[in-house]
Amino acid sequence: MSNKLSFQSDYIAGAHPDVIRALCENNLEAASGYGTDRFCLSAEEKIKAACGKDNAKVYFLVGGTQANAVVISSMLKKYEGVISAKTGHIHAHEAGAVEHTGHKVLELPQTLGKINATDLKNLIATFYQDENCEHMVFPGMVYISHPTEYGTLYSKEELENISAVCREYNIPLFLDGARLGYGLMSYDTDVTLKDIATLCDVFYIGGTKMGALCGEAVVFTRNNTPDHFVNLIKKNGALLAKGRLLGIQFDALFTDDLYFKIGRHAIDMAEKLKALFKEKGYRFFIETPTNQQFIILENSKMEKLKEKVNFGFWEKYDEEHTVVRFATGFSTTESDIEELSKII
Amino acid sequence: MSNKLSFQSDYIAGAHPDVIRALCENNLEAASGYGTDRFCLSAEEKIKAACGKDNAKVYFLVGGTQANAVVISSMLKKYEGVISAKTGHIHAHEAGAVEHTGHKVLELPQTLGKINATDLKNLIATFYQDENCEHMVFPGMVYISHPTEYGTLYSKEELENISAVCREYNIPLFLDGARLGYGLMSYDTDVTLKDIATLCDVFYIGGTKMGALCGEAVVFTRNNTPDHFVNLIKKNGALLAKGRLLGIQFDALFTDDLYFKIGRHAIDMAEKLKALFKEKGYRFFIETPTNQQFIILENSKMEKLKEKVNFGFWEKYDEEHTVVRFATGFSTTESDIEELSKII
Amino acid sequence: MSNKLSFQSDYIAGAHPDVIRALCENNLEAASGYGTDRFCLSAEEKIKAACGKDNAKVYFLVGGTQANAVVISSMLKKYEGVISAKTGHIHAHEAGAVEHTGHKVLELPQTLGKINATDLKNLIATFYQDENCEHMVFPGMVYISHPTEYGTLYSKEELENISAVCREYNIPLFLDGARLGYGLMSYDTDVTLKDIATLCDVFYIGGTKMGALCGEAVVFTRNNTPDHFVNLIKKNGALLAKGRLLGIQFDALFTDDLYFKIGRHAIDMAEKLKALFKEKGYRFFIETPTNQQFIILENSKMEKLKEKVNFGFWEKYDEEHTVVRFATGFSTTESDIEELSKII
Amino acid sequence: MSNKLSFQSDYIAGAHPDVIRALCENNLEAASGYGTDRFCLSAEEKIKAACGKDNAKVYFLVGGTQANAVVISSMLKKYEGVISAKTGHIHAHEAGAVEHTGHKVLELPQTLGKINATDLKNLIATFYQDENCEHMVFPGMVYISHPTEYGTLYSKEELENISAVCREYNIPLFLDGARLGYGLMSYDTDVTLKDIATLCDVFYIGGTKMGALCGEAVVFTRNNTPDHFVNLIKKNGALLAKGRLLGIQFDALFTDDLYFKIGRHAIDMAEKLKALFKEKGYRFFIETPTNQQFIILENSKMEKLKEKVNFGFWEKYDEEHTVVRFATGFSTTESDIEELSKII
Repeated sequence: MSNKLSFQSDYIAGAHPDVIRALCENNLEAASGYGTDRFCLSAEEKIKAACGKDNAKVYFLVGGTQANAVVISSMLKKYEGVISAKTGHIHAHEAGAVEHTGHKVLELPQTLGKINATDLKNLIATFYQDENCEHMVFPGMVYISHPTEYGTLYSKEELENISAVCREYNIPLFLDGARLGYGLMSYDTDVTLKDIATLCDVFYIGGTKMGALCGEAVVFTRNNTPDHFVNLIKKNGALLAKGRLLGIQFDALFTDDLYFKIGRHAIDMAEKLKALFKEKGYRFFIETPTNQQFIILENSKMEKLKEKVNFGFWEKYDEEHTVVRFATGFSTTESDIEELSKII
Repeated sequence: MSNKLSFQSDYIAGAHPDVIRALCENNLEAASGYGTDRFCLSAEEKIKAACGKDNAKVYFLVGGTQANAVVISSMLKKYEGVISAKTGHIHAHEAGAVEHTGHKVLELPQTLGKINATDLKNLIATFYQDENCEHMVFPGMVYISHPTEYGTLYSKEELENISAVCREYNIPLFLDGARLGYGLMSYDTDVTLKDIATLCDVFYIGGTKMGALCGEAVVFTRNNTPDHFVNLIKKNGALLAKGRLLGIQFDALFTDDLYFKIGRHAIDMAEKLKALFKEKGYRFFIETPTNQQFIILENSKMEKLKEKVNFGFWEKYDEEHTVVRFATGFSTTESDIEELSKII
Repeated sequence: MSNKLSFQSDYIAGAHPDVIRALCENNLEAASGYGTDRFCLSAEEKIKAACGKDNAKVYFLVGGTQANAVVISSMLKKYEGVISAKTGHIHAHEAGAVEHTGHKVLELPQTLGKINATDLKNLIATFYQDENCEHMVFPGMVYISHPTEYGTLYSKEELENISAVCREYNIPLFLDGARLGYGLMSYDTDVTLKDIATLCDVFYIGGTKMGALCGEAVVFTRNNTPDHFVNLIKKNGALLAKGRLLGIQFDALFTDDLYFKIGRHAIDMAEKLKALFKEKGYRFFIETPTNQQFIILENSKMEKLKEKVNFGFWEKYDEEHTVVRFATGFSTTESDIEELSKII
Repeated sequence: MSNKLSFQSDYIAGAHPDVIRALCENNLEAASGYGTDRFCLSAEEKIKAACGKDNAKVYFLVGGTQANAVVISSMLKKYEGVISAKTGHIHAHEAGAVEHTGHKVLELPQTLGKINATDLKNLIATFYQDENCEHMVFPGMVYISHPTEYGTLYSKEELENISAVCREYNIPLFLDGARLGYGLMSYDTDVTLKDIATLCDVFYIGGTKMGALCGEAVVFTRNNTPDHFVNLIKKNGALLAKGRLLGIQFDALFTDDLYFKIGRHAIDMAEKLKALFKEKGYRFFIETPTNQQFIILENSKMEKLKEKVNFGFWEKYDEEHTVVRFATGFSTTESDIEELSKII
């Protein structure tokens, strides 16, 4: 795979050079285990500052599905489920990890991966109007992803509206930020990290897809960490002995705005890629403001292209066309784009 | 913590220099995700060769509790539980991660962390003789750790006897090798990696405590991988997007016998440490053949020692004494031992 | 509640007189526990005969949600979920009992409570075409209800088509027959109990809503009882010590066609009720061929009617109308219908 | 089985005549479902009065394993397990129903089925002293049975001491009273139902083994019903549609002290049986103050006896002897004892 041009995903490469450098530099320093080391503490402080939340608490987990299942199962009461878009990652692509913890995902309709406050309010209100609601799963949390699985973004107003419904019903709002940095650094967003920390009750800042080897930083924004959360992490098999691996990486990512620079670089590359496809007359399935672009290819064209460049297969469009995904990341270079321009 | 002499655990440092070097060297190479990359494939081949098992299948997971819960819950049928020593890590120190998957741990008595074939056979035979066994949890797997939680080792004969009982009843034998390399390189063992691969149905080769940043290599020894095991890994939140992180590390650990060299080095250091404590007249709680030594300290002595060296607190011995643990690892140096000799 | 005319549900009364008589007659006979008594054995034989399946195995459980959760969780593999209509009882009205066992419900569209073979085949085929299907929940069972939650019925052809898809993909078809007798005795069905036993892999014959105090008879039709099913019933807290309570009732229900007579009586009453509402010009939400009729009432009319008769509230129709349910059962009498005719 | 003398268990017969009479008398009265009927309400009031607890809340479940799993899983927090004797029914004979809900059973030593306050306090105190307690399952509830699985009873002082430890650590005390009536009416007890209601946080009054067809009355003694408990009952598949079945039976059992009369009758019979065995020189495994007596029989003697009388097999005593159980219940008569006296 190594010599072929690759836009397959945003997790094709190892770590951003600054991240791996930090791992090397601190490699032999003795540190205590399970996230109690100085690197985790430092990273937590930097993230809290970036979020503008002194009361926040930050926990580092290894991956996205894990973060989703641990957070959701720790916050839900036993009679509750989590509301998600039909296309939400927890609902469609996590092998039933939420249900594995005994909780149901309650489905909302979506548009390009996004739910809206009206549908959300309607679902909750209808639930409480139902005479038989004690026989149904209580809505106990709202899950959204930003960017969504389709690379789309919520506007600040949309987030505010969703957050308002959650607070009206005292249901936590959880934002899956596996690709958060790409959302925050999009040319076309009015949402900041501080907005998210204010509007959400819990969210995570994705590392794996943003230049770390692995790692997601879960942020509880309002003194609302579940009791004995470390125990619940352990119970889910998600407590890393060498927590330093996550601490060092997030400390590096939140030093000198590296996280945001990585995001911006990938967005710059994605915009060039988008322009390139447009210029060449390609048809978009979704033209997104983030690092993933969804193109509709004729199947024969797709097969030819595959010989020279790696990309992701998204879904069948019709008998003769397929939706494919091109993603950029920290390791995408200007010369990758140039090379691509010669191929497509 | 950085400047203090530290024997607290075998996971105080980052990765062995050769391991982190491999991560750096391959850092920017594009690789496919979820364990399908060339590094994982290469590491699998090397591990199969080291095990002498062409039919083995190897899966890389991030941590020990995770590996235990994923393997156990994937192999047990719904009416089964897993047999473990009272002191087994899954039974005592994993926050109920096995029960979280809906399965019971069936307790066996132990001596210094070890179960024996007679007790095991007795538990299973008694179960099947019970008229009410349909109302009880079926014994469906045997879990042992090697080295055990007390640093002790099974002899080859002991493992053969346990394995024979398992095969008589067609119950898989699962060996938790979180510290396997220390066991294999002990001065006082007749058990090889090939023996383990022959006698066990599934086991894992610990990386986290053996010089990796994280990672455990699960080996199914006899064409006995559970159906759709990758799906079950995902369902447990344990599937790493950048599987390369584990593949590269295990590839390095199984190149030029690095895994065994790390084990031997730590054993050498542990034997020196043991000799030192003996020479100085310390009392051992358990004198082990592996990298962990358990010493009984007067509480006042312990407090003084703590000022100069980090070690682990194991358990209260009596009102005036405490059992403490000294562990060595890849990063323990001759000079650490010398420095310790001046302190104790 | 006792003196008011009641069409609220089909579980408002105790047991059919013949059923409670059987309980009285055998009350003091000593019997072994947990379903091993002679009454359960006799009931099983009668049910097998009624189904025309010598190889069938019958288990008696207490209630419908319990039967659904026990059967589904016992038959699914750990990586599988169960396919259900959006309106399926397990999906909408069982408090997440299936998810409580760690399995996801995979939603299919529906029309008046019914799924169809085309949608089913499409869901399964699309699943297996997806490159990422290992990250998704495998379709492992199909759940249908007959009559459905809306009182509608599948035709024999529709069941054959659904069954054919299931067999093509080797996925068991499970039919929830909580109200099965009303379906079988509808004036408008071509489906017999033997058809169901042939087309389904497992189904249950509802007792609770068909004249028993409690009880559902689960029928595995093809030597396909899950291993140690009694243990799994126990693990789900569903094993009755005095299994005789269920055995005696089902033995009575399957003596002299009582089950079918109860069904036919309720259907006769439902048809009279339906004719009555039609005659009086009421508007139907769904006009069903079974024992439940769904009428649209003006809210003010509904409030007045409530003073004289009990019925079920189904859902809001619009701001000024509500859908209500009238149900008949073994205890509904001709004079109830006559009295109703004076009221509406 | 019907003509043979039977002391096999206390659930061999149907219901006490007064209980089944009540079922018959109210059989055709229309009642609302799911435990909201007037019979359940009446039974609740009578039980509250018998307990001397105006604040109590009573819920009716169908069976003992179900009651245990529902109560325990509903009261435990996600990081907690339940403490039980090694011989506790939930730990040994319920097929892992508690673990099925994701929670661990934490084992305490026992004597003749009883735990003691000292061991309990020691377990909890040791837990909190452990530096690694966040990696372990938190003690979150104490489960005891009264009478125990061995027919033994706690004294009031023993219960007070256990209760005091629970309240010191703010851990609920849960008493499994599957055979409570036999305990309360023992000749050798100083514990009343009011004591139990005062000392326990939750307990259940067994019906199945005390003359009901089925049913256990769960009593929350101190305004401590878990939120949305009905939903959790449903989620566990334990909500009965015709809740009246349980309400009518418990209403009858708590009318005119029937519950206590049934208990006293069985105790009277058990004492006669005990005297008989003593008189005839039989050897007791445990001589209990309740309705179960455990006798050691030579195997050949046991085989002969089996031809004429049904009893329960408990456990192997040694190669030549077996422990068997004789139980009495509401249906045991004086003439049964007389007949037995001719046989043994």
